[in-house]
Amino acid sequence: MKNSMETTQLLGDVVHTMHTINDITAASSILNWDQETYMPEGAAETRAEQISTLETLAHQFLTGDSSKKLADRITSLNGYATSEPLFRLFIEDFERASKLPEELVRRTSRAQALAQDIWKHARAEKNYAKFQPILAELIDLKIEAAERYGYAENRYDALLNLFEPGMTVAQLNPVFENLRTATAEILSAIEPNLSRVSDAPMLQHYPKQKQMEFSRYISEKMGFNFNNGRLDLSTHPFCTSFSQYDVRLTTRINENDLHSCLYGVIHETGHGLYEQGFATKYARTFAADGASIGMHESQSLLWETIITRTEEFWSFALPKFKEIFGESVARYSTRDFYKAVNTIQPSLIRTEADEVTYNMHIILRYELEREMINQTIDLKDIPEIWNEKMRQNLGQVPKHDGEGCLQDIHWSFGGFGYFPGYTLGKLYAAMEWNILQQQMPDVRSKIANGDLLPIREWLRENIHQYGRSQKPAEIIKRITGKSLTETDFVEYAKAKANDVYEIGTLPIL
Amino acid sequence: MKNSMETTQLLGDVVHTMHTINDITAASSILNWDQETYMPEGAAETRAEQISTLETLAHQFLTGDSSKKLADRITSLNGYATSEPLFRLFIEDFERASKLPEELVRRTSRAQALAQDIWKHARAEKNYAKFQPILAELIDLKIEAAERYGYAENRYDALLNLFEPGMTVAQLNPVFENLRTATAEILSAIEPNLSRVSDAPMLQHYPKQKQMEFSRYISEKMGFNFNNGRLDLSTHPFCTSFSQYDVRLTTRINENDLHSCLYGVIHETGHGLYEQGFATKYARTFAADGASIGMHESQSLLWETIITRTEEFWSFALPKFKEIFGESVARYSTRDFYKAVNTIQPSLIRTEADEVTYNMHIILRYELEREMINQTIDLKDIPEIWNEKMRQNLGQVPKHDGEGCLQDIHWSFGGFGYFPGYTLGKLYAAMEWNILQQQMPDVRSKIANGDLLPIREWLRENIHQYGRSQKPAEIIKRITGKSLTETDFVEYAKAKANDVYEIGTLPIL
Repeated sequence: MKNSMETTQLLGDVVHTMHTINDITAASSILNWDQETYMPEGAAETRAEQISTLETLAHQFLTGDSSKKLADRITSLNGYATSEPLFRLFIEDFERASKLPEELVRRTSRAQALAQDIWKHARAEKNYAKFQPILAELIDLKIEAAERYGYAENRYDALLNLFEPGMTVAQLNPVFENLRTATAEILSAIEPNLSRVSDAPMLQHYPKQKQMEFSRYISEKMGFNFNNGRLDLSTHPFCTSFSQYDVRLTTRINENDLHSCLYGVIHETGHGLYEQGFATKYARTFAADGASIGMHESQSLLWETIITRTEEFWSFALPKFKEIFGESVARYSTRDFYKAVNTIQPSLIRTEADEVTYNMHIILRYELEREMINQTIDLKDIPEIWNEKMRQNLGQVPKHDGEGCLQDIHWSFGGFGYFPGYTLGKLYAAMEWNILQQQMPDVRSKIANGDLLPIREWLRENIHQYGRSQKPAEIIKRITGKSLTETDFVEYAKAKANDVYEIGTLPIL
Repeated sequence: MKNSMETTQLLGDVVHTMHTINDITAASSILNWDQETYMPEGAAETRAEQISTLETLAHQFLTGDSSKKLADRITSLNGYATSEPLFRLFIEDFERASKLPEELVRRTSRAQALAQDIWKHARAEKNYAKFQPILAELIDLKIEAAERYGYAENRYDALLNLFEPGMTVAQLNPVFENLRTATAEILSAIEPNLSRVSDAPMLQHYPKQKQMEFSRYISEKMGFNFNNGRLDLSTHPFCTSFSQYDVRLTTRINENDLHSCLYGVIHETGHGLYEQGFATKYARTFAADGASIGMHESQSLLWETIITRTEEFWSFALPKFKEIFGESVARYSTRDFYKAVNTIQPSLIRTEADEVTYNMHIILRYELEREMINQTIDLKDIPEIWNEKMRQNLGQVPKHDGEGCLQDIHWSFGGFGYFPGYTLGKLYAAMEWNILQQQMPDVRSKIANGDLLPIREWLRENIHQYGRSQKPAEIIKRITGKSLTETDFVEYAKAKANDVYEIGTLPIL
């Protein structure tokens, strides 16, 4: 009895500390959102200082004396790790943050700020050499961090774990190899039938206002709660949240290409539904977050690449689409749109890639990162290796570093270990889609009726509510009974390629 | 030499601490701004928690051990108070914050949050009795705070000083009495000529978009830097800033009354110019703020009630006005607009009052507050006293408490001592206007040419750059050579009434 009262008291103290830290990081996120949406240009420098102050404060709180005392009280409990996820999360976050000396955190954040600026210029000038020295510095800092975090087998695992808890190089390597093989198979199978598919329906002139109207309509249909969220414009689409009661989506609009806005909004809505779906008991705690980058991406990609690229989705959406955009696009059928949004076309730029070739972009980056962090590659060779891998995997060769190894912002902000999450998201999403279809056999007819809420409810029930209280591997096992596998995705991708490119030659496993 | 190095080192430490505290309060202001402009409704409760966490943090930093050590180091310097304004401000703010125990701060902030909610309902129901109990609680808390702050003569001075450093009841009483007399004089003098003035030109149909366009044009002409600021919509107009590089204005629009948007934007721009004008060396310190509420209001009111209500202003603005709003308003002349925006008309609602009768609203509130804080009034009599004073001062009697003693939010947020600042702002503004005319004899012709930047520069040079590094009394003395007086305002108001109402019977002092 005394023990249980003590535990309750301790939980209260932990939650109180989490509230403070969470409120500070939420404030920092609000400052970031404002910076990307409404902040006047001249405020950039001071805003960076303000955000840095908040992040330093949050780190100090998490690693300070009172957190140390809390951590000691928690670890003195028997079986704390299983009894209460908030205890486990507090210990994990406290220990991880405490492993890095403040001086390293500060040097890293300074180098990252600098690197982003240098990267911007280097990319504009298509000049990798300009970026290489700061990249070297970042890698040294990440290696130091990885060594301090610790790892069992591969130094890269320590960084991977920041974004995908529990994931290892040993697990990823065979999965990515199989994906590479399957992608090559699909690309060669569709080759003779490329002319059967056209993305022209998506490339008409679509006025900005109407794109927003249609995208917002779909977002609402998916169940995004605009009483607890917003949709704004920004240079790069993103989703951020300041609590499950305030989730912000952004998008951008290209008047001659509907993809960018519509599928951008759908993607961010997928993230947003996850953020709005955490159990309310987790509000303002460390559990009010996605389980991992991969799990978060699975929520956006399930909607963006699977559900809203079904023929059923377009049969539901087309009447509204025609109502909004008018007769000029009325000549296109449901099947035209279905094919248009499922074009497979190797290209140089990751963010513009289709769902099949996208993984090749990730595998390339993963391999390079892994070698950089293990110091088994000479940094000056990066552009050459990049271009050679692009040629081998996708038959494409960048004309310059701007559309080659400088295209992504991730390395400049120190996000080594982040990229694999995108492909993990696709693999999880395919696994979720299979089990969802088993448990909701009429899901395709629901989609055809625009009845998308049951899908959101299924996701909330099975994934969203748990937030970060379960690990990604735990979640995927609980839902599907299986561990991470590429099989579901490969099957799904082959079946769709068969259908869209009308080939019927790809063996389904 | 050693001493000077120590001082430099100490200043560095003080500035560093100010940066941290300032960044936290700036973040809190950003959260507030977002709440009033773009925040989704459902986020209100969590947002309140987040803001409260940041405010508690700022208070803890300001009163914590490391601030105590800094304060000791400063006070051990000889003549610290005059040598460096940042030392003086740090000591003042540290000591004031330290006088209130955290428990009182927390009780007060909780009561104020509650009171705002109760006030909203009480006002909607026109029911003062519903508000009275929480008002009583707030007054008890404010009395406790005033006793802890300390005062020489009148307990109300302790609260007045929070908003107007150095101001006292002893100074205010005679000034306000003279204002009351002068107001009565003006009202009775214009009485026979009321029909000579009409505000019809302002009450046409003015489309929203065009009102924003015109208002923004004037704001830019005044010199507001939109590279370091924004203009948005909100329920109540306000100006807030997160640094001199990021100043946000808001306004609201009534399509059938141009006052609200145009003069709202001008008013907030006046505040915004002050905020953008602090010396850059004060960025992120305690000096990057207005000297007082009165001084801040003088910056908005100088523009709103004096400069942009001159006939010269309208002779400059009218061509642009007609260009934007078109021929439907072309029948009105410069003089028509000049008269329309200078109508004097006693009314029940403070925020809608003209510049002359406005002060009567303030004096009424000041007298009530002073008595409440000195406990020389029975709270249940407030509505009756309010109504009687309105009748005596302005010949108006509220039909219910909603348009009487419940009309303002200020008491519910605990702003006892705030109201006098509005009238002080008018008095300072008239003093500034007189000295500006002396030092810039062609100011009226500059205004007629739309050449407003020299006025902003004069204000920046004489007032803005100092921020909070000088006291209001010091600033007004430095500029005008005089102490606070109502004479300049009374002269100015009588001269304008003479001109607008074509009477020529009011004696100019």
